[in-house]
Amino acid sequence: MGEIATGPLLSQINTPADLKTLDRTQLQQVCNELRQFIIDCVSVHGGHFGASLGVVELTVALHYVFNTPDDQLVWDVGHQAYGHKILTGRRKVFHTNRKYGGLSGFPKRSESEYDAFGVGHSSTSISAALGMAIASKLQGAENRQHVAIIGDGAMTAGLPFEALNHAGVSNSNLLIVLNDNNMSIDPNVGALKEYLTDITTSHSWNKFRDDVWKFLGKLPYADFQRELASKIEASVKGVISKSSNLFEALGLRYFGPIDGHNVLKLAEILEDLKDIPGPKLLHIKTVKGKGYELAEKDQTLWHAPGTFDKITGKINKKIITVPEPPKYQDVFGHTIVELAKENPKIMGITPAMPSGCSLKYMMELMPDRALDVGIAEQHAVTLSAGLATRGMKVFCNIYSSFMQRAYDMVVHDVAIQKLPVVFCLDRAGLVGDDGPTHHGAYDIAYMRCIPNMVVSAPMNEAELRNLMYTAQLDETNAPIVIRYPRGTGVMPEWRTRMEKIEIGKGRKIKSGKDVAILSIGHPGNFAVEACKTLATDGLNPAHYDMRFAKPLDEALLHDIAKNFQKVVTVEDGTIVGGFGSAVLEFFNAHQYKVSVHMLGIPDRIVEHGKPEELHRECHYDAQAIVETVRSLSPVRIREKEFIG
Amino acid sequence: MGEIATGPLLSQINTPADLKTLDRTQLQQVCNELRQFIIDCVSVHGGHFGASLGVVELTVALHYVFNTPDDQLVWDVGHQAYGHKILTGRRKVFHTNRKYGGLSGFPKRSESEYDAFGVGHSSTSISAALGMAIASKLQGAENRQHVAIIGDGAMTAGLPFEALNHAGVSNSNLLIVLNDNNMSIDPNVGALKEYLTDITTSHSWNKFRDDVWKFLGKLPYADFQRELASKIEASVKGVISKSSNLFEALGLRYFGPIDGHNVLKLAEILEDLKDIPGPKLLHIKTVKGKGYELAEKDQTLWHAPGTFDKITGKINKKIITVPEPPKYQDVFGHTIVELAKENPKIMGITPAMPSGCSLKYMMELMPDRALDVGIAEQHAVTLSAGLATRGMKVFCNIYSSFMQRAYDMVVHDVAIQKLPVVFCLDRAGLVGDDGPTHHGAYDIAYMRCIPNMVVSAPMNEAELRNLMYTAQLDETNAPIVIRYPRGTGVMPEWRTRMEKIEIGKGRKIKSGKDVAILSIGHPGNFAVEACKTLATDGLNPAHYDMRFAKPLDEALLHDIAKNFQKVVTVEDGTIVGGFGSAVLEFFNAHQYKVSVHMLGIPDRIVEHGKPEELHRECHYDAQAIVETVRSLSPVRIREKEFIG
Repeated sequence: MGEIATGPLLSQINTPADLKTLDRTQLQQVCNELRQFIIDCVSVHGGHFGASLGVVELTVALHYVFNTPDDQLVWDVGHQAYGHKILTGRRKVFHTNRKYGGLSGFPKRSESEYDAFGVGHSSTSISAALGMAIASKLQGAENRQHVAIIGDGAMTAGLPFEALNHAGVSNSNLLIVLNDNNMSIDPNVGALKEYLTDITTSHSWNKFRDDVWKFLGKLPYADFQRELASKIEASVKGVISKSSNLFEALGLRYFGPIDGHNVLKLAEILEDLKDIPGPKLLHIKTVKGKGYELAEKDQTLWHAPGTFDKITGKINKKIITVPEPPKYQDVFGHTIVELAKENPKIMGITPAMPSGCSLKYMMELMPDRALDVGIAEQHAVTLSAGLATRGMKVFCNIYSSFMQRAYDMVVHDVAIQKLPVVFCLDRAGLVGDDGPTHHGAYDIAYMRCIPNMVVSAPMNEAELRNLMYTAQLDETNAPIVIRYPRGTGVMPEWRTRMEKIEIGKGRKIKSGKDVAILSIGHPGNFAVEACKTLATDGLNPAHYDMRFAKPLDEALLHDIAKNFQKVVTVEDGTIVGGFGSAVLEFFNAHQYKVSVHMLGIPDRIVEHGKPEELHRECHYDAQAIVETVRSLSPVRIREKEFIG
Repeated sequence: MGEIATGPLLSQINTPADLKTLDRTQLQQVCNELRQFIIDCVSVHGGHFGASLGVVELTVALHYVFNTPDDQLVWDVGHQAYGHKILTGRRKVFHTNRKYGGLSGFPKRSESEYDAFGVGHSSTSISAALGMAIASKLQGAENRQHVAIIGDGAMTAGLPFEALNHAGVSNSNLLIVLNDNNMSIDPNVGALKEYLTDITTSHSWNKFRDDVWKFLGKLPYADFQRELASKIEASVKGVISKSSNLFEALGLRYFGPIDGHNVLKLAEILEDLKDIPGPKLLHIKTVKGKGYELAEKDQTLWHAPGTFDKITGKINKKIITVPEPPKYQDVFGHTIVELAKENPKIMGITPAMPSGCSLKYMMELMPDRALDVGIAEQHAVTLSAGLATRGMKVFCNIYSSFMQRAYDMVVHDVAIQKLPVVFCLDRAGLVGDDGPTHHGAYDIAYMRCIPNMVVSAPMNEAELRNLMYTAQLDETNAPIVIRYPRGTGVMPEWRTRMEKIEIGKGRKIKSGKDVAILSIGHPGNFAVEACKTLATDGLNPAHYDMRFAKPLDEALLHDIAKNFQKVVTVEDGTIVGGFGSAVLEFFNAHQYKVSVHMLGIPDRIVEHGKPEELHRECHYDAQAIVETVRSLSPVRIREKEFIG
């Protein structure tokens, strides 16, 4: 693993200035080489795939035409920005992409001056670029260009609409490139998508005008033709000029749609657009995965396929010899189907992550009761609240970091009304390769301060199933958060019989003395491992899986406080205001003098890497628990370590 | 104060069933009486005014035509729902509106079965009503009607767009009534508003067709007229049918615009719309404040004018005999102007609250540098982030509870990138009459868990100015929250010389012994008052204004921990995860055995009332501090109370 073979032109491009020295006729070859480089690199090192292949031509054209980094390119979501990274000085280190200590999988301001804005979550680019454009205007840099590159999937979110509403009256030097490939990670959904298909295939104004002229040409009364045609044209234009197009209705000049894989045409039109003042939108049509046939055919599978054989297209899978634990995602996906078969009130909602969260199984079997609402977390939550008012039990599955988008809806529409919506927060805790934008670090803290809210996390697959079972019971009449991590659990035999868990009830994993470990969620397994290691030292901490950060198991905590003076809390979430903090609040409120040693995500931005690497770095893996318990254990025992 | 004189028809209407017994010809009189009732009531008791006057005819028509409460009416924002409340069994208690223990100023599920969905924040109605419609479909209640009534101001938010994108493909029985009055609280802004004006004033499709026919009628060649006209009509329709209108582009059937003050016409068209399946939008034009001339003329002033003389229109103002402290809002509004005159990097951003937050002063003086972006909190924050990347110092002023809308943008676009945006969180803490949806209860908790974030609250006007001054300095290179309450401060002479405050530095208000009071923000003044009372008991607690919930003043806390075993924290925010919790985390981390008695907003939904009433109820006013310090003081001193 090291440097990837690089085509002759690409190997000469270290910055966009090098690209600009090439003749236009060479651009297609640059595209071919760049595409090949991405295929070579991702097939060996993994990463996002289809999105960047789809914008190779756009990327080359943008850097050829615009004066980066002074001109500002904002790549929405950012997993489409591999080509951009490769052309802007990062080709030789691109093999470190998404690896611990390596390049970020997304544009990142601290990584390069070419990365004008850090991204990761979708739909931010128009607002950010508009801010830059307004600043440039105030600063007298009227010629600086500001380009937001955004997909049609990202356009379904509310934020771009808010931004368009402002951009349309701002008179700023803003270009929006709408990269329309009909996809989010899964196929894009909603009325906007249908509209975009519509304007691509339907009569345009130009086409209409041609039709009228052609028709009038057949009339025998030549003297009236000119007057009639111009009257009709003026009249029709009055009706449709501002409203013929959704974007023009919002005050943007609309151009397109054009073929996003024709690099010469793209360069030409981008050059022209530089001279057109004010906010404008260029609609380009691209194919996600363009140039790699399998990726074009199954765009969801090839969104981020892992490593693969680039010749055969065979995706490398771990060879499984013994039964393996499932992904938490699949436990959710299959369990909701199981429950929904019994309980007709159950619905499933996902904002554009049916594959990622595995709601797809229910969507296939019960299309009326499992809905993908597009990239629209706010709507997903308020829709769930509306459904809940009519007696439905909604499992609203949103990645923890994306739930930040719908925080007000959780407070205002669900919690204040105490509606029993079930929030399944997938990818809670440190997510790994996607890094800081995607870490689900804050949800315990931002959820437990909300009245009426139940906040839980399962330690394993059986617990996830039990929590889901409990959540859908009629008697569970409050909103409930069930947070669980990305990736595999610990139980190969995970199809357990489901049981009710009493809300706010923890469980003892093992008795012990001197120190009590209180875990929530999957790090309970780190604690189990740690206890085994500690046993070999002769150390015997107690371990409790608390299950709920809110409400806390007060009876259990009273009991623990009476028997232990030292408590270690472990969570896959921020220490500041998190589960450990809740435990501490309880002890303080009841005047127990228990010292609480909190393990979890520290108060800083944690970068990307494998979860194991990050748990280690953040000091809440099994080894960290071992070290913490050792440091808290009575000296006589700790000495034993050194003697024995 | 008690029952308001009620017109002869209105006095017979106790539920919508009574309304339905009337003849259509009587509806206008009902409207007149309802309007008069609202004027009479609000003039004496205060409350929102213009919005409800604007929808009197719509309210009467909706309850006349629809079968409430089985049919579901969702009133966006909800301060337009006074007429709805009065017609649905709450007329006789309507004088308790927004009073402690009385009716809520907004629809509220627990208050009435006619209130299908609790509201307060704008823009939720379409999502909620769509959820209800989807549930009805699944439950076989296909005939149930679901109506979202939403203003054009609320439509600028992202959430309704997300909802429209889903509604347009949902085939649900949803009616959206777009109440277009060109206003939020302040005049509405943005491209959508211009578009709505446009479709109201421009040629409609029908008008166009008439024009063509008229023109063709002048042609001498009668035999061609029919063919030509129909060809043109077909051809034009092909171009504009799906795209002639922004809402039709999104898959909704569009009707209107019609006069929203013609109750008969409204009743008629609503009746017709009941029979049209699928999602549809009715665009009505209304005048905010309709029927009260002064309110029609100055709609912002009369949004919620307080009490007034209904004959003369004179708004009652407290008679001021001594110089009074200003509103925090005005301190912000004038101070940002003062700072911006010196520092060209400063910008001000507000999402639709220029009057409420007083950014209006800067908008008048520096229109390029102070922007109202519409009801669009998400965009306001990401736009601010974009501006900050180009070196601007942005004061983004958002009400604390509305900031919940932009939480992800704070985390993802500002904090992760450590951009020095200044978040002025107006109306932090318990806001009073607006109640639970508007209480800014959670911001300390949800902000302090974010890395890189500074979280501060001024104790008075001078401190607010100093924090604003500090925030705009170049050396302040992190995002900073400055939270302050709704309403007046404590310093009549508030135009103090501004000074830099060291980030994370608290200040000692008074020395003392036995107990230390640690306050943040304006409740520091409660503590000052409490200390005076306690002094008469011979009790002498220390008092510190900590200023920052993050970073904490660690040196000061070390000092406090070494000198006090009992600490009382006071904040106008949630106790769970809040400032007190942060202090507790610090003591625990450093193994101080200090017991912390936290005063603040409890872990339950706090209803509406005057701030003083609520501070009392929640036990963190001066009296509560007195009681707490007394209870913590050594017995010998407490006995003195009883003896002395």
